[in-house]
Amino acid sequence: MTKVIRNGTIVTADRTWKADVLVKDGKIVAIGNDLHGDHEFDATGCYVMPGGIDPHTHLEMPFMGTYSADDFESGTRAALSGGTTMVVDFCLPSPGQSLLEAIQMWDNKSTRASCDYSFHMAITWWGEQVFNEMPEVVKRGITSFKHFMAYKGALMVDDDEMFSSFQRCAELGALPLVHAENGDVVAQLSQKLLAEGNNGPEGHAYSRPPEVEGEATNRAIMIADMAGVPLYVVHTSCEQSHEAIRRARQKGMRVFGEPLIQHLVLDETEYFDKDWDHAARRVMSPPFRNKQHQDSLWAGLSAGSLQVVATDHCAFTSDQKRFGVGDFTKIPNGTGGLEDRLPVLWTKGVNTGRLTPNEFVAVTSTNIAKILNMYPRKGAILEGADADIIVWDPEKIKTISSKAQQSVIDYNVFEGIQVKGLPRFVFTRGELAVNDGKVEAKPGHGQFVAREPHMAVNKALSTWKEVVAPRKIERTGIPATGV
Amino acid sequence: MTKVIRNGTIVTADRTWKADVLVKDGKIVAIGNDLHGDHEFDATGCYVMPGGIDPHTHLEMPFMGTYSADDFESGTRAALSGGTTMVVDFCLPSPGQSLLEAIQMWDNKSTRASCDYSFHMAITWWGEQVFNEMPEVVKRGITSFKHFMAYKGALMVDDDEMFSSFQRCAELGALPLVHAENGDVVAQLSQKLLAEGNNGPEGHAYSRPPEVEGEATNRAIMIADMAGVPLYVVHTSCEQSHEAIRRARQKGMRVFGEPLIQHLVLDETEYFDKDWDHAARRVMSPPFRNKQHQDSLWAGLSAGSLQVVATDHCAFTSDQKRFGVGDFTKIPNGTGGLEDRLPVLWTKGVNTGRLTPNEFVAVTSTNIAKILNMYPRKGAILEGADADIIVWDPEKIKTISSKAQQSVIDYNVFEGIQVKGLPRFVFTRGELAVNDGKVEAKPGHGQFVAREPHMAVNKALSTWKEVVAPRKIERTGIPATGV
Amino acid sequence: MTKVIRNGTIVTADRTWKADVLVKDGKIVAIGNDLHGDHEFDATGCYVMPGGIDPHTHLEMPFMGTYSADDFESGTRAALSGGTTMVVDFCLPSPGQSLLEAIQMWDNKSTRASCDYSFHMAITWWGEQVFNEMPEVVKRGITSFKHFMAYKGALMVDDDEMFSSFQRCAELGALPLVHAENGDVVAQLSQKLLAEGNNGPEGHAYSRPPEVEGEATNRAIMIADMAGVPLYVVHTSCEQSHEAIRRARQKGMRVFGEPLIQHLVLDETEYFDKDWDHAARRVMSPPFRNKQHQDSLWAGLSAGSLQVVATDHCAFTSDQKRFGVGDFTKIPNGTGGLEDRLPVLWTKGVNTGRLTPNEFVAVTSTNIAKILNMYPRKGAILEGADADIIVWDPEKIKTISSKAQQSVIDYNVFEGIQVKGLPRFVFTRGELAVNDGKVEAKPGHGQFVAREPHMAVNKALSTWKEVVAPRKIERTGIPATGV
Amino acid sequence: MTKVIRNGTIVTADRTWKADVLVKDGKIVAIGNDLHGDHEFDATGCYVMPGGIDPHTHLEMPFMGTYSADDFESGTRAALSGGTTMVVDFCLPSPGQSLLEAIQMWDNKSTRASCDYSFHMAITWWGEQVFNEMPEVVKRGITSFKHFMAYKGALMVDDDEMFSSFQRCAELGALPLVHAENGDVVAQLSQKLLAEGNNGPEGHAYSRPPEVEGEATNRAIMIADMAGVPLYVVHTSCEQSHEAIRRARQKGMRVFGEPLIQHLVLDETEYFDKDWDHAARRVMSPPFRNKQHQDSLWAGLSAGSLQVVATDHCAFTSDQKRFGVGDFTKIPNGTGGLEDRLPVLWTKGVNTGRLTPNEFVAVTSTNIAKILNMYPRKGAILEGADADIIVWDPEKIKTISSKAQQSVIDYNVFEGIQVKGLPRFVFTRGELAVNDGKVEAKPGHGQFVAREPHMAVNKALSTWKEVVAPRKIERTGIPATGV
Ligand SMILES: [Zn+2]
Ligand SMILES: [Zn+2]
Ligand SMILES: [Zn+2]
Ligand SMILES: [Zn+2]
Ligand SMILES: [Zn+2]
Ligand SMILES: [Zn+2]
Ligand SMILES: [Zn+2]
Ligand SMILES: [Zn+2]
Repeated sequence: MTKVIRNGTIVTADRTWKADVLVKDGKIVAIGNDLHGDHEFDATGCYVMPGGIDPHTHLEMPFMGTYSADDFESGTRAALSGGTTMVVDFCLPSPGQSLLEAIQMWDNKSTRASCDYSFHMAITWWGEQVFNEMPEVVKRGITSFKHFMAYKGALMVDDDEMFSSFQRCAELGALPLVHAENGDVVAQLSQKLLAEGNNGPEGHAYSRPPEVEGEATNRAIMIADMAGVPLYVVHTSCEQSHEAIRRARQKGMRVFGEPLIQHLVLDETEYFDKDWDHAARRVMSPPFRNKQHQDSLWAGLSAGSLQVVATDHCAFTSDQKRFGVGDFTKIPNGTGGLEDRLPVLWTKGVNTGRLTPNEFVAVTSTNIAKILNMYPRKGAILEGADADIIVWDPEKIKTISSKAQQSVIDYNVFEGIQVKGLPRFVFTRGELAVNDGKVEAKPGHGQFVAREPHMAVNKALSTWKEVVAPRKIERTGIPATGV
Repeated sequence: MTKVIRNGTIVTADRTWKADVLVKDGKIVAIGNDLHGDHEFDATGCYVMPGGIDPHTHLEMPFMGTYSADDFESGTRAALSGGTTMVVDFCLPSPGQSLLEAIQMWDNKSTRASCDYSFHMAITWWGEQVFNEMPEVVKRGITSFKHFMAYKGALMVDDDEMFSSFQRCAELGALPLVHAENGDVVAQLSQKLLAEGNNGPEGHAYSRPPEVEGEATNRAIMIADMAGVPLYVVHTSCEQSHEAIRRARQKGMRVFGEPLIQHLVLDETEYFDKDWDHAARRVMSPPFRNKQHQDSLWAGLSAGSLQVVATDHCAFTSDQKRFGVGDFTKIPNGTGGLEDRLPVLWTKGVNTGRLTPNEFVAVTSTNIAKILNMYPRKGAILEGADADIIVWDPEKIKTISSKAQQSVIDYNVFEGIQVKGLPRFVFTRGELAVNDGKVEAKPGHGQFVAREPHMAVNKALSTWKEVVAPRKIERTGIPATGV
Repeated sequence: MTKVIRNGTIVTADRTWKADVLVKDGKIVAIGNDLHGDHEFDATGCYVMPGGIDPHTHLEMPFMGTYSADDFESGTRAALSGGTTMVVDFCLPSPGQSLLEAIQMWDNKSTRASCDYSFHMAITWWGEQVFNEMPEVVKRGITSFKHFMAYKGALMVDDDEMFSSFQRCAELGALPLVHAENGDVVAQLSQKLLAEGNNGPEGHAYSRPPEVEGEATNRAIMIADMAGVPLYVVHTSCEQSHEAIRRARQKGMRVFGEPLIQHLVLDETEYFDKDWDHAARRVMSPPFRNKQHQDSLWAGLSAGSLQVVATDHCAFTSDQKRFGVGDFTKIPNGTGGLEDRLPVLWTKGVNTGRLTPNEFVAVTSTNIAKILNMYPRKGAILEGADADIIVWDPEKIKTISSKAQQSVIDYNVFEGIQVKGLPRFVFTRGELAVNDGKVEAKPGHGQFVAREPHMAVNKALSTWKEVVAPRKIERTGIPATGV
Repeated sequence: MTKVIRNGTIVTADRTWKADVLVKDGKIVAIGNDLHGDHEFDATGCYVMPGGIDPHTHLEMPFMGTYSADDFESGTRAALSGGTTMVVDFCLPSPGQSLLEAIQMWDNKSTRASCDYSFHMAITWWGEQVFNEMPEVVKRGITSFKHFMAYKGALMVDDDEMFSSFQRCAELGALPLVHAENGDVVAQLSQKLLAEGNNGPEGHAYSRPPEVEGEATNRAIMIADMAGVPLYVVHTSCEQSHEAIRRARQKGMRVFGEPLIQHLVLDETEYFDKDWDHAARRVMSPPFRNKQHQDSLWAGLSAGSLQVVATDHCAFTSDQKRFGVGDFTKIPNGTGGLEDRLPVLWTKGVNTGRLTPNEFVAVTSTNIAKILNMYPRKGAILEGADADIIVWDPEKIKTISSKAQQSVIDYNVFEGIQVKGLPRFVFTRGELAVNDGKVEAKPGHGQFVAREPHMAVNKALSTWKEVVAPRKIERTGIPATGV
């Protein structure tokens, strides 16, 4: 049984052209004019693009005795509804837990995913066992390792551990990721704010100013450089962090930055809302910043100093958020966005001219696939690629509302924003998941995507580091040999 | 009649994979496993890449009563021999001359080209006629306009003219280019040096320090920003210029930079050679810089702040160079490089790990094709693309020597450099031009490539400029209306 | 007859201490404890500081057939009332006019000045006469030369002229100043805005965006560097210009920047006022900028990358401003500030902690005196220095109002700002000019202050430029000598 | 008994003029023309300047079971011989040791000092006792606290401790200092180098690349900013660190940087010397860098982004250095320089035009006195100031040689450098210590200089931090109160 997407304009990261797309057995099998198949989907007036990939989600994530509210079932349905056809979630071992055991747990969670997914492995502790299990993790197709520089006393690793892990990544051809905030400083600032009575959600933002993120980003970059490994900085939210990334890149370092759709369009004034719930629902780390930071992030996307747009989707209900009434440090950190990333980015980015349509595809899909070494199986409209496809109607309008969303939570941080540009059809490996705007996700359809290590940038960087490696000086006149 | 390139590894700007390539009627018609055809070319152990595109050549360029020595015949043969399958040359009207008449002259020059070519149009003067002819130039497929900020009294335009022309480019959806050096300052510095007896070729370098280039680049960027048009800076040779480009890009401006292979690998000490000929043969504008500038340019290529590598091929014989004995301002400006760009960049870039093979393809071919709106007809290994293909043997070695070169001049600025990585086969629109290392160019085979205006970045930038356009304030209390 | 300022705390650019000051014959003759004299002035609770120096005023400046409204009489009275005891005005020759003749005209204008003054000479045209008269100008004590990069068709000089003049300054040990805006671009933008119907005062701001100023600053810096002379950038109003200055300084270049008090505290929204008069009264070049630019300027003052705060006092009445109804290019450019610079800077700078009291003295007085080579005659509380002294009451409050001002114009751009920190007494060369807040200026008391060339930074820079000067290569094998 | 320095040209940080200086009871009591006294010293042809202050020495410092070779006796004699009339040494408590007890130890060491001195207190551990003793330390006149971010397992403090200490400094109006290198990374790199057989002195340099210093500087700056306290970065050796300082300052942060004379003139090639002793004698932290870093530091001194030049004088004999044969981590870290700082800086800075004579005084003396709040008792030629004076003969020449030095060690890292510019006379609180080039130090003459806290920049910064402090949002609708 074949499907054809007809009469659309294909938009990829590198070009735009009119052609039909023929899909069979979950793959794109032909691209050309006047193709036909068993089922035909009209893309007239639409753009046909690679499905979005969200490189940063936390579905059913354990947190303070509870779990983030969207699991792989609701989360991937939300993703599909907004044109995202793949998510990369974080596998989080408990301190002391085997990495392989953690993979098993995440495998279990993800059985009802309706789109494809992959995992990053988090290095939440360090020891010989972790060192020894990392190769097996890579062998199982998980080639990216996340490090938390914040969440002191919980997920945080120190510089010594991080440097050890980065060196291990270099050996394995893997890619380290960092959540970059100085955890020591955040912890003390938080206590100071609480002590001063600053216990509302705005205190969360006050406790994590841009300088704290910029510092940690800068530090992680230095450590990666010393380890000779590329680096991926998740949720780059501010100019300070972006500046550190730019500065590194202009020295030839291989560093990637990931702004979130939230940071691109929402700002810190959300935390100053008189309504505690409104503010608390926006609590995430890093917090929203001001307009100058937003301008910096947008410029980074068009300049290429920032490469991808993610969501850090980690949804908590208002009830869960209210754990933190009277103490902002107890508000579960996280917001949603899986459903809204593409429409919001298109509206605020492409419709304003800040991004070209091709850049939109690059930052929502293709660059991610390349950096995580899944391209062109993912992130491409090419013969042989997985048929993860969105048919995008640039004229379609809606106003975002939690009432109509797929996510199980009871609010939406983008509530009330009118978007122009929405999926008409979405295909996940050839299966129709959004049909003329209506969501038809199939739980369990999603599969794990294994990835290969030793990406091209890893190999190039290793070669360069060997070229410039320290050389021992051959000496005459060493005193111990009898000067 | 079909040709198949078999058993190679295809390397494009975005991926690397093993596949065969089937060519017919000058086009790539299939890419896949186990393809067969009338003629089969063995690419075992080789990379199959899009042919190089040189966006910056001056073939048979009129200069001081003579012409640059390589014409379209020898120049394109040299290009093909090194894996470059397309050149973009500069059509230079005399002051007061019709742009259309100049096109006619360049059409005449290019009849014996053995690879495809396109033109940039130079704006060497400004007036109503130029303004009026620009749309016709664009209609003929020349959508990029070059502006010289140096060569005072000859090609140079002033800020007022440049701003006028950039605005015209914005209206036409065209792309302005600049040769960025402050011509007023260069002219005075040159006279001062000569007056002090500094008349040797090193005086040429002294008269054009990096600051002079950086300033002009910065100025052109501002003018482009005010005009609301993207900008392409040719022969970006130094950190100062690169810094200006980076600074612009990190504000969201659409600016491209083009280092030359010469500036990437040769440095200013060449001008301090005791041999006058040696130094004079390296005289070009901008001159070679020091190692710190080279590091900056290499980093720009991997960071994406610089996009393409060109040659500014403008070859003069030693006899021609000697016009300038006793007065460096009379040394014809220009060096060769068409034949050597790819092997030298591969050797110094890919073999050292400064660039990945994919980045190599991007900066020598694909990015150029995209910026100049010829992609994917050029710069791609895709079905439907022109069969401009190189089969690259990464193990093949040679030492560069003028004795063995295609260029008609009697020296080579890369003389003595050992390169590793050379073409085994080169195809220009399906025709074999290099056969197992032997050059078989066919003069007259080359065709003019017309290009469309209104590139995606032009459109996006125009949209953004409208979003942020100045708004008139509606006033009460205007005194003239009778306060 | 002696005067003593008793019981105050002396604040200079480099220290703060309690002492009395004894004044005789217009000079400070003693500083110490328990001094006594014929007249004693109580400085209890006050700071005793060097009088302010405004390095940038235009008193009775000819403009479009009229003159700026404050002349040396009202202007210096306004200055004294706010604690400024010296102004440096611009001597502006007409195109073709002798510089010496222009000095004569400015000498005539300044006879009724009630505080000391000096002049900068403007290079409004270029030619052999200008070149030849510059040494005589320097000999007369005018050692700084202003260059306008804007005001096309009027005061503007081009790069070639500016480079010539800068080189002449280098020879003479003089200091070039620039008004840095790209005049060609401003002129075209202005015409474009008018053509689009954008003829209100906000059009003035739109026609001179920060990029246009930053570009010109960057260009002037490069030209000064090539000429081997320090540079002083007047009215640095924006981050772009400040960035260019910082970038130069961090390469060791000798560049000074002068923010205006207006740009530090007033922003672009003034031009969006519904009242035409309100907006037009704020028209000056460069125009006011946004808050981010203000932050940049404040940081520059504390970091030392910007050195002085001026006013560019050039006051026009509302009637004069209304010349420009219907055409913003006809609104006379200029605002007042002489009276308000010190109180406003103290209030917004020292009272907020952005500046220390010592830095306040440095940027309003001492640094200016040093840069213009009048220190320690001016800008110091030292024995032997001119007794230009302010006794500053940090608790004194007023709300700025044009009704109570000394300036002859009918409005004040700082109207309504409450300042805390005002002069109790002001002395100009020992004469009391403000007595317990009451102004008692004496027209004709002011004297011209002649300055010496060859400042320490000029000498150091010349030495360094000789160290790094281009060296001729001695050659063998020059072809012309018979290779 | 009075002394007069006659016929010299006084050079201070802010001016240059001809005058005599009268000294009595260790103080300057008059400055003027034609002064006379009991002893007259001829300064004809000389500059009369404030004595040098070295803000960074380690005399008789305990290290690995031994002590640095120069103690307060030989160290201050060396200082005086080169024109330095005051040193600030580091009081280093052992882990767990009382700060007050450590002061006692340093008091004991310093009894034979022949010039004045002060102390910085090092925070080598953190706990309630340290927190509680800090006010008493400040009360005793030690208002600056040093933090080591390197020397893991010994002196190093972590971010949490450093942030705590910085906040305590903010409360006390004290100034934190940092030795900025990432100790975790240095430790691992060192082990890796040793494991690879890279055990020579060059391994020391390899283990501490500029990135490692830049990172720590950046981190300390952020932590100081969060604590609301100024910061002083000792031995700023590289562009990375300087860039972090510049970046902070251009945001209005109060950060100071201190290059060493060694880093300004010596480069990394010293470590590549074939002679083990030669290389080992230059081992210090941070190590010497390349020429580009030197250019950065020089520019910082003239731009004002770096403020002072120190020595980090910590002299070990060749025998002591040889502890590290076969293991560079065992080479005692430190070099000399007390005797050579001024002549070398004058020669390489003033004689080349990189610094004016006034800037020379600023960076060797006056700025240090201001930052450490000893001005104008120290660092000034003013009536009432301590008579710490050098009479500097700019024509005097010598070639530096360990044979002729005051330091007790057997080599000199500046060996063979010819300096032009040396003291003719040096006075320490009025006592002659160098007489026509001959050293006449008096052990025991030196006194401890107590300093006051709450410097002007501390106060300004605290005010500003209060202005921008986080404000609690007053809320309606807090869910816990019953939404
Ligand atoms: Zn995170
Ligand atoms: Zn996350
Ligand atoms: Zn050119
Ligand atoms: Zn060219
Ligand atoms: Zn002006
Ligand atoms: Zn002015
Ligand atoms: Zn140290
Ligand atoms: Zn030290």
